Amino acid sequence: MAFFRSRWVQRPGHVAEAGDDRLPAGFRAAGVAAGIKPSGGLDVGLLVNGAPDGVSAARFTASGVLAAPVLVTKERARLDALRAVVVNSGNANAATGRPGLDEAARMQGAAAMAAGVATEHVAVASTGVIGVQLDGQKVVKGLLAANGRLSPDGAGEFSAAIQTTDAFEKRATLDVELPSGRVRLTAQCKGAGMISPRFATMLCFVQTDAALSAETADLLLGVCVKRSFDRVSVDGQLSTNDTVVLMASGRSGVTVAPESEDELRFGEALDVLLRQLALLIVADGEGSERVGRVVVRGGHQPGVDAVARAVANSPLVKTALHGGDPNWGRIAQAVGAALPGTAPLALDIAIEGVQVCSGGMALPVDQAALDAAVAGPEVEYEVGLPGEGADAELFFSDFGHGYITINADYTT
Amino acid sequence: MAFFRSRWVQRPGHVAEAGDDRLPAGFRAAGVAAGIKPSGGLDVGLLVNGAPDGVSAARFTASGVLAAPVLVTKERARLDALRAVVVNSGNANAATGRPGLDEAARMQGAAAMAAGVATEHVAVASTGVIGVQLDGQKVVKGLLAANGRLSPDGAGEFSAAIQTTDAFEKRATLDVELPSGRVRLTAQCKGAGMISPRFATMLCFVQTDAALSAETADLLLGVCVKRSFDRVSVDGQLSTNDTVVLMASGRSGVTVAPESEDELRFGEALDVLLRQLALLIVADGEGSERVGRVVVRGGHQPGVDAVARAVANSPLVKTALHGGDPNWGRIAQAVGAALPGTAPLALDIAIEGVQVCSGGMALPVDQAALDAAVAGPEVEYEVGLPGEGADAELFFSDFGHGYITINADYTT
Repeated sequence: MAFFRSRWVQRPGHVAEAGDDRLPAGFRAAGVAAGIKPSGGLDVGLLVNGAPDGVSAARFTASGVLAAPVLVTKERARLDALRAVVVNSGNANAATGRPGLDEAARMQGAAAMAAGVATEHVAVASTGVIGVQLDGQKVVKGLLAANGRLSPDGAGEFSAAIQTTDAFEKRATLDVELPSGRVRLTAQCKGAGMISPRFATMLCFVQTDAALSAETADLLLGVCVKRSFDRVSVDGQLSTNDTVVLMASGRSGVTVAPESEDELRFGEALDVLLRQLALLIVADGEGSERVGRVVVRGGHQPGVDAVARAVANSPLVKTALHGGDPNWGRIAQAVGAALPGTAPLALDIAIEGVQVCSGGMALPVDQAALDAAVAGPEVEYEVGLPGEGADAELFFSDFGHGYITINADYTT
Repeated sequence: MAFFRSRWVQRPGHVAEAGDDRLPAGFRAAGVAAGIKPSGGLDVGLLVNGAPDGVSAARFTASGVLAAPVLVTKERARLDALRAVVVNSGNANAATGRPGLDEAARMQGAAAMAAGVATEHVAVASTGVIGVQLDGQKVVKGLLAANGRLSPDGAGEFSAAIQTTDAFEKRATLDVELPSGRVRLTAQCKGAGMISPRFATMLCFVQTDAALSAETADLLLGVCVKRSFDRVSVDGQLSTNDTVVLMASGRSGVTVAPESEDELRFGEALDVLLRQLALLIVADGEGSERVGRVVVRGGHQPGVDAVARAVANSPLVKTALHGGDPNWGRIAQAVGAALPGTAPLALDIAIEGVQVCSGGMALPVDQAALDAAVAGPEVEYEVGLPGEGADAELFFSDFGHGYITINADYTT
């Protein structure tokens, strides 16, 4: 299946899926089974940038309850010069107190040893159950095994090692034609549940062999995250562990200079990569079958943002999306809840381009056409509020029996 | 089944369920089938206070998208002197623009005629589908029929006429022994979906034959609503139509004077009545099987409120409650999401009195005992944040396949 598969992401002509699966020059990765996941699946991943002058940028969850690996990485790593990433799945190492911080620090130290870099160049990430102490010995043993397997072809097994309840792989290998030459851009991502629009929502590791300054990497990652992972919601829940890391080796010899055409083109490629990955996360929301996009326009940015999030997180809207039901009264409800005290509101609503509500009042519609419009895998909702100049976009998953099955029937 | 059935509501000794089903002296009610509900069930209710000097108080939803009946009642009725209430179910008359306002005004006029009171003494309420024009002719014909059926024994059919997807009746007939004499207190309520903690969440009509001033009625209703309907969540969704009306006839001859022992006792009775009704709404949340109570304590009231709502509205917490799963990591997640940027947070969590997290760190627990503690119909969660002096309480329903079935599989 093609990586670019949503109608809401337009692949630019200078970005192409690569014919092979190799990481960008300078990078190696591996994934191993260390016995942390009860399933016995791959659960420790190691990613190394071999370029001594490699640069990086990172973003983390805004949660007030931060997992130990996030605290350790934010406080003890040089986020602009990461050379290695160690990840475990099957245990989030969150709400684990001082022992958890010790285990995260141990992971950082062991990965630094394996990668042959100083501790401050290593990022640590974890994902899985909250509130259970992580067995650091298993991770260290896994790291030893992973170190022996590091390979430029290791993106697939690294990707598998960072996933949990994901139903499918979320990664890409892209070739990007810049004015100054070709660079490679790859990413591995995990999603599924506990996904919310207020950044950061998952784990995502991005690699390139372009030569970027750390400032450029940080600028581009910040802009692209705001347009991708910051714009999705599976269940409105904010994880304790979310981490995005961009690393650049420079080994292609192609330099992306600030404010150059190269930077513009590279930014476009990073943008479509992260937006498509974010959409894959939504599409793989726990039990998800359909993806919605809500676009809200009006005159007041905070109001427009609040409405977009209220619609995207409404269980009534999400169940209607799941059922292929164009019941827009639920959208009106979500708008009203987000803007208390503003009644009567001149509210416009359109579904797949069919206007159903104008100035707060229902319009006559062709019900059969409307039913057909919401039957596809992607459904677009537009909300108009008074005024102009502000807009907000959010992608969200539907809410069906699968979410309940995964989260109520079979959890630990 | 006893009306007072939650362990979280303690019936005071001076409050008793009545041996009969009659409305308080002065009140009559009726419910009829007017053809608005596709099911053919009762869908128009009329409630009349026969006391010319009757007083009242009311509260409404805070939504920015107000239904026409709410706008008409708030703007064109004397909320301190309501003598009649007309309600239809099967159509919310929301997002219906000017024609909807006309229909709501027509309902008000027809009910005034039927009750023999001035238009300004009539409250109008509607519940049902949003965005469909209400057929006012049906309501008027229903009102004619209801007027002929008005009876002191009509609370049951009035109650049936205001319900929609409710699985069971939510009403009470109480006798209250005040120092100055006995009064009767009755209420009819509807709930089910689109229920959120930011008041007001449903329809509830309360009657008494105590003699209250309008100021006392407003004060007591305001306080008791804040402790009941303002403290529940089924799905975190705020309806466009929610209305609570308290009406007093004074026909018992017992006066509830301000700051008297009578006022205290009457207030206690109203408090347990509304809290138990609110808990019945939660218990009858669409597809609900279990009820949760979260109590949050700390030093910062807005933070404590935000955490209580985040926990109560978290689909991960609600699915865990449904599945009888003591997975408190999901509570930690909700707390962190509600308090971004505060990490590391010294968070305490207890489930049914079993402390599972202290100072942000998991504690060893007797897993079998904990599993048993969350297997009952009511589960209590306590969250401790730094500081003291502030607390918040919320009751919430679980989230199971029934919610999906009702809202995705079978909606219009």
